[in-house]
Amino acid sequence: MARQEEGGVPAQWDEPAIRVLMMPRDTNAHGTIFGGVILSYIDQAGAIEARRQGLQFMVTVSMDKVVFHEPVFVGDLVSFWTETLRVGTTSITTKITVKAIRAGDPSQRVTVTEAQVVYVNIGKDRKPAPIERKENAYSE
Amino acid sequence: MARQEEGGVPAQWDEPAIRVLMMPRDTNAHGTIFGGVILSYIDQAGAIEARRQGLQFMVTVSMDKVVFHEPVFVGDLVSFWTETLRVGTTSITTKITVKAIRAGDPSQRVTVTEAQVVYVNIGKDRKPAPIERKENAYSE
Amino acid sequence: MARQEEGGVPAQWDEPAIRVLMMPRDTNAHGTIFGGVILSYIDQAGAIEARRQGLQFMVTVSMDKVVFHEPVFVGDLVSFWTETLRVGTTSITTKITVKAIRAGDPSQRVTVTEAQVVYVNIGKDRKPAPIERKENAYSE
Amino acid sequence: MARQEEGGVPAQWDEPAIRVLMMPRDTNAHGTIFGGVILSYIDQAGAIEARRQGLQFMVTVSMDKVVFHEPVFVGDLVSFWTETLRVGTTSITTKITVKAIRAGDPSQRVTVTEAQVVYVNIGKDRKPAPIERKENAYSE
Amino acid sequence: MARQEEGGVPAQWDEPAIRVLMMPRDTNAHGTIFGGVILSYIDQAGAIEARRQGLQFMVTVSMDKVVFHEPVFVGDLVSFWTETLRVGTTSITTKITVKAIRAGDPSQRVTVTEAQVVYVNIGKDRKPAPIERKENAYSE
Amino acid sequence: MARQEEGGVPAQWDEPAIRVLMMPRDTNAHGTIFGGVILSYIDQAGAIEARRQGLQFMVTVSMDKVVFHEPVFVGDLVSFWTETLRVGTTSITTKITVKAIRAGDPSQRVTVTEAQVVYVNIGKDRKPAPIERKENAYSE
Repeated sequence: MARQEEGGVPAQWDEPAIRVLMMPRDTNAHGTIFGGVILSYIDQAGAIEARRQGLQFMVTVSMDKVVFHEPVFVGDLVSFWTETLRVGTTSITTKITVKAIRAGDPSQRVTVTEAQVVYVNIGKDRKPAPIERKENAYSE
Repeated sequence: MARQEEGGVPAQWDEPAIRVLMMPRDTNAHGTIFGGVILSYIDQAGAIEARRQGLQFMVTVSMDKVVFHEPVFVGDLVSFWTETLRVGTTSITTKITVKAIRAGDPSQRVTVTEAQVVYVNIGKDRKPAPIERKENAYSE
Repeated sequence: MARQEEGGVPAQWDEPAIRVLMMPRDTNAHGTIFGGVILSYIDQAGAIEARRQGLQFMVTVSMDKVVFHEPVFVGDLVSFWTETLRVGTTSITTKITVKAIRAGDPSQRVTVTEAQVVYVNIGKDRKPAPIERKENAYSE
Repeated sequence: MARQEEGGVPAQWDEPAIRVLMMPRDTNAHGTIFGGVILSYIDQAGAIEARRQGLQFMVTVSMDKVVFHEPVFVGDLVSFWTETLRVGTTSITTKITVKAIRAGDPSQRVTVTEAQVVYVNIGKDRKPAPIERKENAYSE
Repeated sequence: MARQEEGGVPAQWDEPAIRVLMMPRDTNAHGTIFGGVILSYIDQAGAIEARRQGLQFMVTVSMDKVVFHEPVFVGDLVSFWTETLRVGTTSITTKITVKAIRAGDPSQRVTVTEAQVVYVNIGKDRKPAPIERKENAYSE
Repeated sequence: MARQEEGGVPAQWDEPAIRVLMMPRDTNAHGTIFGGVILSYIDQAGAIEARRQGLQFMVTVSMDKVVFHEPVFVGDLVSFWTETLRVGTTSITTKITVKAIRAGDPSQRVTVTEAQVVYVNIGKDRKPAPIERKENAYSE
């Protein structure tokens, strides 16, 4: 179900890597969704994107350009869309775009957060290992 | 992003309603994913499908034909695909098909669980209220 | 503490299999208890009933006739009463009746949910194995 | 279902106040159940015992004589049995006895922990208020 | 960073053993922080104090003199300060003082709870083993 | 307890903003601590640092330079040390340094993660509001 890849640039996945419904247990003291909850799913979503590119065992090495554009509310359906920005020898840079469908207005998809996460491919010795790409690993 | 609707039958959504990565905290005493975790997401997924058909405030009234076909493992990416089987005056019957992409083999999507869940549309007085369908509420 | 068994029909247990106090972290977006929380305990309660009949290693295979009669609230003491409906060669059918004692009115026990859950007895090879019943395993 | 009360001494409840199945998410670094999980349920169980004696709004004021006799394991069915030791003007002293039914040996009920917890009855102004006892509030 | 030890009496640690921000998911039915949450961190804090005195593998054996002085609220920053009261042959007695910095008034540190917890040092056979003290294990 | 401030540069706090013990429920599929757990505490720790500088109501706006240096393990005592890098008109930039004391070797404090988080001060209308600094709000 992934779009065709053109050249060396991996295509953006047309399915969300993670999609969750926000619950009261996810809130902070102000009653909106705790940023840490969003960050946790971002870390998972980027790892799934990396896995989709063929990585099997990886560790998160860095995260950058995390921007919280809008608050997230209880009842929001929140999707973590991913794309691969760069595939290096042993590392991969992913971009995660977080969009919320508000409980009261399902016709809009609001971009609430964005982030870039880098993962390193790891061998059985837990040291960086060359990435053997298997493009579109999740295609059907 | 929903397929075209044909006649009165709502189209199946071509995006998962819920998609989550299974973690160690989700396991049972046998080390596989606890069925209760899957059931919780099924309840959420069906509610999202109902919301996609236009319901805003609803309660779960019944669940049937829940079949656990295969175990789910830590590291699996688990998707909850939904479709609407029937829209009544005040209730809606949804079907949820749960598919796992195994951590070690991303090329397959294994159907692990299936279920049917019925929701009743509720007014501000918490009593059943007629459904005003807004088809394809999540289309872009 | 289980009632005497009559004939081949297992007696209903006169203690709840699971009993829990509902907390704010268990709520859904409407402020009542999330159905998934109830379903999780139902799965555990049925497994305990199966264990009480002598099964040691089992998997949930299906769930049916789940009916949510009444909402559950924060502060409710919720009990999961179980009985065995049928013991087959390798599977067991359990019935779970969920009753709530409301925080504000402890004199009533309201039936909030009912369900039937089937478990299959599993050997060390994870394949269905004949059930060796040990009746009233939990008697003192 | 509570035993007859004799004189001024409240009878012990013949149903557990709380009963839960221990899961991997409840473990500590040693793989046994984290003591904090047991303590949390003890606090709830004592409050339920106090509610059974007629208190509606209360706060925990002290806890004593908590003894951890045996470790608790994943898969154990753990019951929190309660009794009222003393009912004062505004406070109530409860005793909680925690018993585990081991997954592998359902014929034994091992006392794993004991504790005494005192609660104070609180009025709407959050100040101590006289207890109006409603004996056997949970009787059927 | 630990104060100088005088005689055989271990010095109080001038850093909190545990410090956490209270969230809505930690509340009880009354909207304040659930006592079980505080008790869980007390158990961890005492174990960290014991570890600071040189114990590596230990079990909680008893808890006493737990006093809840003041309620804890969502948004409070709660610190668990520890000291060692007594080091025996195989056991250690710790005192935990819980202080809250209220969200709205950071200039005060309110003592909300106190407790004493005893741990027993355990060998690889899970039996009590003599404590080999390593004073100020956490000093820099 | 905060160090003396020199010039306009806020002093680094000599107490951790957050300190937690890592548990099995915090692990990822590889058995080490899930990065999302660390990120959640980083978001809280930065907010506490901001609160220490006088902010009362704030939202996280961005996160940068998150570097995961070393894995975190179950049993580690993990501290989130904070400092304020810059105080603007309505926003504050904090740096969080995460250090782990390994269960097996309490003499070392290993830097496991670093991050910078920016918060915006918010008025009652949820719009950016000028920061009124109260230096060393947490001093005793």
